[in-house]
Amino acid sequence: MNILIVYAHPKPDSLTGALKDVAVQQLRSDGHEVVVSDLYAMDWKAQADTDDVGEVEEANFMLATGEAYRTGSLGADIRAEQEKLLWADAVLLHFPLWWFAMPAIMKGWVDRVLTNGFAYGASGHALPRYGDGVLRGKRAMVVVSIGGREPAYSDRGINGRLDDVLYPINHGILYYPGMDVLPAFPVYGAIRVSDRRFAEVADALRQRLSQLDEIEPIAYRPQSGGDYDRSLRLEPGRERNGATGFDLHIAS
Amino acid sequence: MNILIVYAHPKPDSLTGALKDVAVQQLRSDGHEVVVSDLYAMDWKAQADTDDVGEVEEANFMLATGEAYRTGSLGADIRAEQEKLLWADAVLLHFPLWWFAMPAIMKGWVDRVLTNGFAYGASGHALPRYGDGVLRGKRAMVVVSIGGREPAYSDRGINGRLDDVLYPINHGILYYPGMDVLPAFPVYGAIRVSDRRFAEVADALRQRLSQLDEIEPIAYRPQSGGDYDRSLRLEPGRERNGATGFDLHIAS
Repeated sequence: MNILIVYAHPKPDSLTGALKDVAVQQLRSDGHEVVVSDLYAMDWKAQADTDDVGEVEEANFMLATGEAYRTGSLGADIRAEQEKLLWADAVLLHFPLWWFAMPAIMKGWVDRVLTNGFAYGASGHALPRYGDGVLRGKRAMVVVSIGGREPAYSDRGINGRLDDVLYPINHGILYYPGMDVLPAFPVYGAIRVSDRRFAEVADALRQRLSQLDEIEPIAYRPQSGGDYDRSLRLEPGRERNGATGFDLHIAS
Repeated sequence: MNILIVYAHPKPDSLTGALKDVAVQQLRSDGHEVVVSDLYAMDWKAQADTDDVGEVEEANFMLATGEAYRTGSLGADIRAEQEKLLWADAVLLHFPLWWFAMPAIMKGWVDRVLTNGFAYGASGHALPRYGDGVLRGKRAMVVVSIGGREPAYSDRGINGRLDDVLYPINHGILYYPGMDVLPAFPVYGAIRVSDRRFAEVADALRQRLSQLDEIEPIAYRPQSGGDYDRSLRLEPGRERNGATGFDLHIAS
């Protein structure tokens, strides 16, 4: 497979950085082609702004990115990342959880690369989404380092269940343009890690990555699969027994 | 009251920008002191990196920000925003919803300003949190422009319920360092807005802001209030009837 790793950590010698190296090594030794977008090393521009779109007629910023995508006036750094996404069979987002979300520089990769016209439509330029779209059929997985401990992210944990915390990323960013999203690979208690613990985590990551093409994706419901009404609400009675909240949007 | 508006949109003539102007005008005419951190106008640096911390001994990035906070070597732009937070009685986060989260430049304000030592602790330097902390007793509210329509963000909507999409912000960012979080003010269908619709939305926002000191905050459970066990899981039987997911962490 062709694999794109989008990676963000300000320190290469961090746990997140070391695990990224483990991932690259394992995937290459399994015969995959690997490209890493190391956002800090690339000095990736984080904020989406009017410099991104070049000369456009459209005043609305979001629609202007769509016009720029269609006319080819998007910034070269953005187009290069879009090409990497089209090349990839699988995409890993590899980051530390900061304030229950991805670091700003990675959010800026999402904001700037997944432009209107490329990853989502708008009135007059509708595009398929949620289970279908430009990245349909590719696999995606989050690898996330977390300072806190697992119970605080469990079903009754104060931070919210990790799957729920990650729903806006897994469902809202990765599934939206059509990717099949694998369960996230979290590393808890990531602030001070002993050598022994690191070896265990690295082994678990290697094992997970060696099954990248076999793991069952999260069974999110496609928007056009008949489960939603015209206002995009789940039709009555479709939920699995006892499913609530974000889990409504998982079919099985 | 002293009110800090943290605002992010790349275009001042956007709906989000126009509503920010409405908010400033209304709050000032109600007699409040208003300071706006206009992140794009300030050319706010979005990515947290080692330049932020100056000379420190600590290798771990997160802990290094804590050392820099204690020794005074944090960047001047960061310290200025921390001072604004300490000055404020209420904080508004005013942004467009991009990929189900805040724009990268605002995430970078959160990542860089809410440093270790200031907004959260770590082993050896524990700080109170979730309902208590450096920003205790201040009020906070999200004002968010959303391209999609309300049903898609309702209880069975495909995007997830808006309150759940915003939980990592409301609970994870604003309540965490002690603020009382008011229900968000969302503006749906924000891509093309008629003059008539804008007038309605502006009126609703003015009315909401005129009650800023009266609105009942979301009743999140304080971490130290006895509802959580030592591993930070909600004690059995504490939930309201039928509450699940993030709603477990709301007391009434």
